[in-house]
Amino acid sequence: MKIACVLSQGYEDSELRVPYEKLKAAGHEVVVIGTKKGEKLEGKKGKDSITTDMEIGDARPESFDALFIPGGHSPDQLRADAQFVAFARGFENKPVLAICHGPQLLITADMVHGRQMTAWQTVQVDLKNAGAKVVDREVVVDKNFVTSRKPDDLDAFVRESLRLLRNGASSVHAH
Amino acid sequence: MKIACVLSQGYEDSELRVPYEKLKAAGHEVVVIGTKKGEKLEGKKGKDSITTDMEIGDARPESFDALFIPGGHSPDQLRADAQFVAFARGFENKPVLAICHGPQLLITADMVHGRQMTAWQTVQVDLKNAGAKVVDREVVVDKNFVTSRKPDDLDAFVRESLRLLRNGASSVHAH
Repeated sequence: MKIACVLSQGYEDSELRVPYEKLKAAGHEVVVIGTKKGEKLEGKKGKDSITTDMEIGDARPESFDALFIPGGHSPDQLRADAQFVAFARGFENKPVLAICHGPQLLITADMVHGRQMTAWQTVQVDLKNAGAKVVDREVVVDKNFVTSRKPDDLDAFVRESLRLLRNGASSVHAH
Repeated sequence: MKIACVLSQGYEDSELRVPYEKLKAAGHEVVVIGTKKGEKLEGKKGKDSITTDMEIGDARPESFDALFIPGGHSPDQLRADAQFVAFARGFENKPVLAICHGPQLLITADMVHGRQMTAWQTVQVDLKNAGAKVVDREVVVDKNFVTSRKPDDLDAFVRESLRLLRNGASSVHAH
Protein backbone atom coordinates (compact mmCIF):
# COMPACT_ATOMS: atom_id res chain seq x y z
CA MET A 1 0.00 0.00 0.00
CA LYS A 2 1.03 3.61 -0.58
CA ILE A 3 1.07 5.51 2.71
CA ALA A 4 1.09 9.30 3.07
CA CYS A 5 3.19 10.45 6.06
CA VAL A 6 2.47 14.12 6.86
CA LEU A 7 5.35 15.80 8.68
CA SER A 8 6.78 19.10 9.91
CA GLN A 9 9.81 20.25 11.94
CA GLY A 10 10.13 18.99 15.52
CA TYR A 11 8.39 15.62 15.05
CA GLU A 12 8.97 12.99 17.75
CA ASP A 13 12.03 11.18 16.41
CA SER A 14 11.11 7.55 17.12
CA GLU A 15 7.42 8.02 16.28
CA LEU A 16 8.45 8.78 12.71
CA ARG A 17 11.44 6.45 12.32
CA VAL A 18 10.17 3.21 13.87
CA PRO A 19 6.85 2.94 11.99
CA TYR A 20 8.50 4.34 8.81
CA GLU A 21 11.09 1.53 8.75
CA LYS A 22 8.65 -1.22 9.77
CA LEU A 23 6.00 -0.18 7.25
CA LYS A 24 8.64 -0.23 4.50
CA ALA A 25 10.03 -3.57 5.71
CA ALA A 26 6.50 -5.01 5.35
CA GLY A 27 6.48 -3.97 1.69
CA HIS A 28 4.55 -0.69 1.93
CA GLU A 29 5.62 2.53 0.26
CA VAL A 30 5.84 5.56 2.61
CA VAL A 31 5.79 9.04 1.05
CA VAL A 32 6.84 11.90 3.36
CA ILE A 33 4.72 14.97 2.62
CA GLY A 34 5.74 18.40 3.93
CA THR A 35 5.15 22.06 3.20
CA LYS A 36 7.90 21.86 0.55
CA LYS A 37 9.47 19.00 -1.42
CA GLY A 38 13.12 18.14 -0.64
CA GLU A 39 13.12 19.91 2.72
CA LYS A 40 15.15 18.42 5.57
CA LEU A 41 13.00 17.98 8.66
CA GLU A 42 14.53 17.30 12.07
CA GLY A 43 13.14 15.45 15.06
CA LYS A 44 12.66 17.44 18.27
CA LYS A 45 15.25 15.32 20.10
CA GLY A 46 17.85 15.87 17.36
CA LYS A 47 18.20 12.09 16.91
CA ASP A 48 16.52 11.77 13.54
CA SER A 49 16.08 13.69 10.32
CA ILE A 50 14.38 13.00 6.98
CA THR A 51 13.89 14.75 3.66
CA THR A 52 10.36 15.29 2.34
CA ASP A 53 9.37 13.45 -0.85
CA MET A 54 6.45 15.66 -1.87
CA GLU A 55 4.93 19.04 -1.11
CA ILE A 56 1.39 19.16 0.24
CA GLY A 57 0.27 21.32 -2.71
CA ASP A 58 0.93 18.34 -5.01
CA ALA A 59 -0.60 15.66 -2.76
CA ARG A 60 -4.05 14.20 -3.46
CA PRO A 61 -5.70 11.76 -1.00
CA GLU A 62 -6.93 9.61 -3.91
CA SER A 63 -3.26 8.79 -4.73
CA PHE A 64 -2.76 7.13 -1.33
CA ASP A 65 -4.15 4.11 0.53
CA ALA A 66 -3.47 5.26 4.11
CA LEU A 67 -2.43 8.24 6.27
CA PHE A 68 0.32 8.17 8.95
CA ILE A 69 0.67 11.06 11.45
CA PRO A 70 3.72 10.92 13.79
CA GLY A 71 3.65 13.01 17.00
CA GLY A 72 5.87 15.68 18.58
CA HIS A 73 5.50 19.35 17.64
CA SER A 74 4.69 18.43 14.03
CA PRO A 75 0.88 17.85 14.17
CA ASP A 76 0.11 21.25 15.75
CA GLN A 77 2.05 22.93 12.93
CA LEU A 78 0.36 20.84 10.24
CA ARG A 79 -3.13 21.68 11.51
CA ALA A 80 -2.35 25.39 11.15
CA ASP A 81 -2.21 24.79 7.36
CA ALA A 82 -5.59 24.34 5.65
CA GLN A 83 -3.97 22.18 2.94
CA PHE A 84 -2.97 19.49 5.47
CA VAL A 85 -6.38 19.68 7.14
CA ALA A 86 -8.19 19.15 3.80
CA PHE A 87 -5.75 16.38 2.87
CA ALA A 88 -6.42 14.52 6.16
CA ARG A 89 -10.17 14.73 5.52
CA GLY A 90 -9.66 12.70 2.35
CA PHE A 91 -8.83 9.66 4.53
CA GLU A 92 -12.16 9.41 6.33
CA ASN A 93 -12.66 5.92 4.88
CA LYS A 94 -9.04 4.78 4.57
CA PRO A 95 -6.60 3.59 7.27
CA VAL A 96 -5.42 6.44 9.53
CA LEU A 97 -2.45 5.74 11.83
CA ALA A 98 -1.88 8.49 14.42
CA ILE A 99 0.32 8.51 17.53
CA CYS A 100 0.89 10.93 20.44
CA HIS A 101 0.02 14.49 19.27
CA GLY A 102 -0.96 13.10 15.82
CA PRO A 103 -4.72 13.16 16.58
CA GLN A 104 -4.53 16.99 16.89
CA LEU A 105 -4.67 17.11 13.08
CA LEU A 106 -7.75 14.86 13.12
CA ILE A 107 -9.46 17.17 15.65
CA THR A 108 -9.00 20.20 13.39
CA ALA A 109 -10.13 18.10 10.40
CA ASP A 110 -13.32 17.29 12.39
CA MET A 111 -12.83 13.52 12.01
CA VAL A 112 -12.95 12.35 15.65
CA HIS A 113 -16.57 12.74 16.80
CA GLY A 114 -17.94 9.45 18.11
CA ARG A 115 -14.68 7.57 17.42
CA GLN A 116 -12.93 5.44 20.04
CA MET A 117 -9.39 6.79 20.20
CA THR A 118 -6.33 7.48 22.32
CA ALA A 119 -3.53 10.10 22.16
CA TRP A 120 -0.79 11.77 24.21
CA GLN A 121 -2.07 12.44 27.74
CA THR A 122 -2.64 16.20 27.23
CA VAL A 123 -4.35 15.71 23.85
CA GLN A 124 -6.82 13.23 25.38
CA VAL A 125 -8.64 16.22 26.97
CA ASP A 126 -8.99 17.95 23.58
CA LEU A 127 -10.08 14.69 21.92
CA LYS A 128 -12.77 14.16 24.54
CA ASN A 129 -14.00 17.75 24.16
CA ALA A 130 -14.16 17.14 20.39
CA GLY A 131 -16.57 14.23 20.95
CA ALA A 132 -14.24 11.22 20.75
CA LYS A 133 -14.59 8.27 23.13
CA VAL A 134 -11.17 8.43 24.74
CA VAL A 135 -9.44 5.33 26.08
CA ASP A 136 -6.09 5.42 27.89
CA ARG A 137 -4.49 2.33 26.31
CA GLU A 138 -1.28 1.60 24.35
CA VAL A 139 -3.25 1.16 21.14
CA VAL A 140 -6.88 1.65 20.15
CA VAL A 141 -8.35 0.35 16.89
CA ASP A 142 -11.74 1.69 15.78
CA LYS A 143 -12.68 0.75 12.23
CA ASN A 144 -10.05 2.53 10.06
CA PHE A 145 -8.34 4.41 12.93
CA VAL A 146 -5.27 3.13 14.80
CA THR A 147 -4.12 5.46 17.63
CA SER A 148 -1.45 5.28 20.33
CA ARG A 149 -0.17 7.55 23.13
CA LYS A 150 3.64 7.74 23.12
CA PRO A 151 6.98 6.21 22.05
CA ASP A 152 6.59 3.39 24.62
CA ASP A 153 3.49 2.26 22.69
CA LEU A 154 5.32 1.92 19.35
CA ASP A 155 5.40 -1.90 19.29
CA ALA A 156 1.62 -2.13 19.71
CA PHE A 157 1.05 0.78 17.32
CA VAL A 158 3.11 -0.81 14.54
CA ARG A 159 1.58 -4.26 15.15
CA GLU A 160 -2.02 -3.01 14.85
CA SER A 161 -1.18 -0.67 11.96
CA LEU A 162 0.32 -3.53 9.94
CA ARG A 163 -2.67 -5.74 10.83
CA LEU A 164 -5.14 -3.09 9.63
CA LEU A 165 -3.23 -2.55 6.39
CA ARG A 166 -3.05 -6.33 5.81
CA ASN A 167 -6.50 -7.54 6.83
CA GLY A 168 -8.74 -4.61 7.49
CA ALA A 169 -8.71 -2.78 4.20
CA SER A 170 -11.79 -4.52 2.79
CA SER A 171 -13.93 -3.95 5.88
CA VAL A 172 -12.68 -0.38 6.11
CA HIS A 173 -13.70 0.38 2.57
CA ALA A 174 -17.10 -1.16 3.16
CA HIS A 175 -17.63 1.19 6.15
CA MET B 1 0.75 42.82 42.57
CA LYS B 2 2.51 39.48 42.85
CA ILE B 3 2.18 37.55 39.61
CA ALA B 4 2.80 33.80 39.17
CA CYS B 5 4.38 32.99 35.79
CA VAL B 6 4.17 29.24 35.09
CA LEU B 7 6.86 28.07 32.67
CA SER B 8 8.55 25.04 31.10
CA GLN B 9 11.22 24.42 28.45
CA GLY B 10 10.53 25.65 24.91
CA TYR B 11 8.38 28.65 25.81
CA GLU B 12 7.90 31.29 23.09
CA ASP B 13 10.79 33.65 23.77
CA SER B 14 9.10 37.04 23.35
CA GLU B 15 5.82 35.93 24.95
CA LEU B 16 7.71 35.43 28.22
CA ARG B 17 10.25 38.26 27.98
CA VAL B 18 8.12 41.21 26.80
CA PRO B 19 5.28 40.92 29.37
CA TYR B 20 7.80 39.90 32.07
CA GLU B 21 9.79 43.12 31.65
CA LYS B 22 6.75 45.37 31.22
CA LEU B 23 4.91 43.93 34.23
CA LYS B 24 8.03 44.51 36.35
CA ALA B 25 8.52 48.02 34.93
CA ALA B 26 4.95 48.80 36.05
CA GLY B 27 5.89 47.84 39.61
CA HIS B 28 4.58 44.27 39.74
CA GLU B 29 6.55 41.32 41.07
CA VAL B 30 6.79 38.34 38.69
CA VAL B 31 7.71 34.94 40.16
CA VAL B 32 8.71 32.26 37.62
CA ILE B 33 7.38 28.88 38.73
CA GLY B 34 8.68 25.66 37.17
CA THR B 35 8.94 21.97 37.94
CA LYS B 36 12.11 22.71 39.95
CA LYS B 37 13.53 25.85 41.58
CA GLY B 38 16.72 27.33 40.06
CA GLU B 39 16.32 25.52 36.74
CA LYS B 40 17.39 27.29 33.57
CA LEU B 41 14.58 27.29 31.01
CA GLU B 42 15.21 28.15 27.36
CA GLY B 43 12.91 29.67 24.77
CA LYS B 44 12.10 27.56 21.70
CA LYS B 45 13.82 30.07 19.40
CA GLY B 46 17.02 30.05 21.51
CA LYS B 47 16.77 33.84 21.95
CA ASP B 48 15.82 33.92 25.61
CA SER B 49 16.43 32.02 28.83
CA ILE B 50 15.37 32.46 32.43
CA THR B 51 15.94 30.72 35.76
CA THR B 52 12.93 29.59 37.79
CA ASP B 53 12.33 31.29 41.16
CA MET B 54 10.14 28.61 42.74
CA GLU B 55 9.11 25.00 42.26
CA ILE B 56 5.44 24.21 41.70
CA GLY B 57 5.39 21.95 44.77
CA ASP B 58 5.98 25.05 46.93
CA ALA B 59 3.55 27.36 45.11
CA ARG B 60 0.12 28.21 46.57
CA PRO B 61 -2.42 30.25 44.56
CA GLU B 62 -3.35 32.23 47.70
CA SER B 63 0.19 33.69 47.76
CA PHE B 64 -0.36 35.35 44.34
CA ASP B 65 -2.63 38.03 42.87
CA ALA B 66 -2.53 36.95 39.21
CA LEU B 67 -1.46 34.16 36.82
CA PHE B 68 0.59 34.67 33.62
CA ILE B 69 0.91 31.83 31.05
CA PRO B 70 3.32 32.46 28.12
CA GLY B 71 2.95 30.33 24.96
CA GLY B 72 5.20 28.06 22.89
CA HIS B 73 5.71 24.42 23.83
CA SER B 74 5.54 25.25 27.54
CA PRO B 75 1.76 25.13 28.24
CA ASP B 76 1.29 21.62 26.78
CA GLN B 77 4.05 20.36 29.10
CA LEU B 78 2.62 22.18 32.12
CA ARG B 79 -0.84 20.70 31.61
CA ALA B 80 0.64 17.19 31.73
CA ASP B 81 1.48 17.89 35.42
CA ALA B 82 -1.49 17.77 37.82
CA GLN B 83 0.27 20.24 40.16
CA PHE B 84 0.20 23.00 37.52
CA VAL B 85 -3.40 22.18 36.62
CA ALA B 86 -4.51 22.44 40.26
CA PHE B 87 -2.47 25.64 40.71
CA ALA B 88 -4.16 27.28 37.68
CA ARG B 89 -7.59 26.41 39.10
CA GLY B 90 -6.77 28.57 42.12
CA PHE B 91 -6.99 31.66 39.86
CA GLU B 92 -10.62 31.28 38.82
CA ASN B 93 -11.41 34.67 40.42
CA LYS B 94 -8.06 36.43 39.96
CA PRO B 95 -6.50 37.99 36.84
CA VAL B 96 -5.35 35.34 34.32
CA LEU B 97 -3.10 36.50 31.45
CA ALA B 98 -2.63 33.84 28.74
CA ILE B 99 -1.18 34.16 25.25
CA CYS B 100 -0.81 31.82 22.24
CA HIS B 101 -0.77 28.18 23.51
CA GLY B 102 -1.22 29.45 27.10
CA PRO B 103 -4.98 28.69 27.16
CA GLN B 104 -4.18 24.95 26.74
CA LEU B 105 -3.48 24.89 30.50
CA LEU B 106 -6.85 26.55 31.16
CA ILE B 107 -8.62 23.93 29.01
CA THR B 108 -7.16 21.08 31.05
CA ALA B 109 -7.99 23.01 34.26
CA ASP B 110 -11.61 23.19 33.03
CA MET B 111 -11.73 26.99 33.35
CA VAL B 112 -12.83 28.05 29.85
CA HIS B 113 -16.48 27.00 29.49
CA GLY B 114 -18.67 29.98 28.56
CA ARG B 115 -15.73 32.42 28.59
CA GLN B 116 -14.99 34.76 25.67
CA MET B 117 -11.38 34.06 24.74
CA THR B 118 -8.78 33.88 22.00
CA ALA B 119 -5.58 31.82 21.52
CA TRP B 120 -3.09 30.62 18.91
CA GLN B 121 -4.96 29.65 15.72
CA THR B 122 -4.72 25.87 16.26
CA VAL B 123 -5.72 26.11 19.94
CA GLN B 124 -8.87 28.08 19.02
CA VAL B 125 -10.42 24.79 17.80
CA ASP B 126 -9.73 23.09 21.14
CA LEU B 127 -11.00 26.14 23.06
CA LYS B 128 -14.24 26.12 21.10
CA ASN B 129 -14.70 22.37 21.65
CA ALA B 130 -14.15 23.02 25.38
CA GLY B 131 -17.09 25.44 25.39
CA ALA B 132 -15.36 28.82 25.15
CA LYS B 133 -16.74 31.62 22.96
CA VAL B 134 -13.77 32.03 20.64
CA VAL B 135 -12.96 35.38 19.03
CA ASP B 136 -10.10 35.85 16.54
CA ARG B 137 -8.79 39.20 17.81
CA GLU B 138 -5.41 40.52 19.05
CA VAL B 139 -6.69 40.67 22.61
CA VAL B 140 -9.88 39.56 24.35
CA VAL B 141 -10.83 40.65 27.87
CA ASP B 142 -13.61 38.75 29.63
CA LYS B 143 -13.91 39.58 33.34
CA ASN B 144 -10.61 38.36 34.85
CA PHE B 145 -9.24 36.74 31.65
CA VAL B 146 -6.92 38.52 29.18
CA THR B 147 -6.01 36.36 26.16
CA SER B 148 -4.06 36.96 22.94
CA ARG B 149 -3.02 34.91 19.89
CA LYS B 150 0.68 35.39 19.09
CA PRO B 151 3.85 37.52 19.45
CA ASP B 152 2.40 40.16 17.07
CA ASP B 153 -0.35 40.77 19.64
CA LEU B 154 2.05 41.50 22.52
CA ASP B 155 1.45 45.28 22.63
CA ALA B 156 -2.29 44.82 23.02
CA PHE B 157 -1.82 41.89 25.44
CA VAL B 158 0.48 43.88 27.73
CA ARG B 159 -1.75 46.98 27.53
CA GLU B 160 -4.91 45.11 28.58
CA SER B 161 -3.06 43.02 31.16
CA LEU B 162 -1.71 46.15 32.88
CA ARG B 163 -5.16 47.76 32.69
CA LEU B 164 -6.81 44.74 34.33
CA LEU B 165 -4.17 44.62 37.09
CA ARG B 166 -4.56 48.38 37.68
CA ASN B 167 -8.31 48.95 37.41
CA GLY B 168 -10.07 45.67 37.19
CA ALA B 169 -9.02 43.92 40.36
CA SER B 170 -11.99 45.13 42.42
CA SER B 171 -14.60 44.12 39.83
CA VAL B 172 -12.81 40.82 39.30
CA HIS B 173 -12.88 39.97 42.97
CA ALA B 174 -16.56 40.94 43.14
CA HIS B 175 -17.28 38.45 40.30
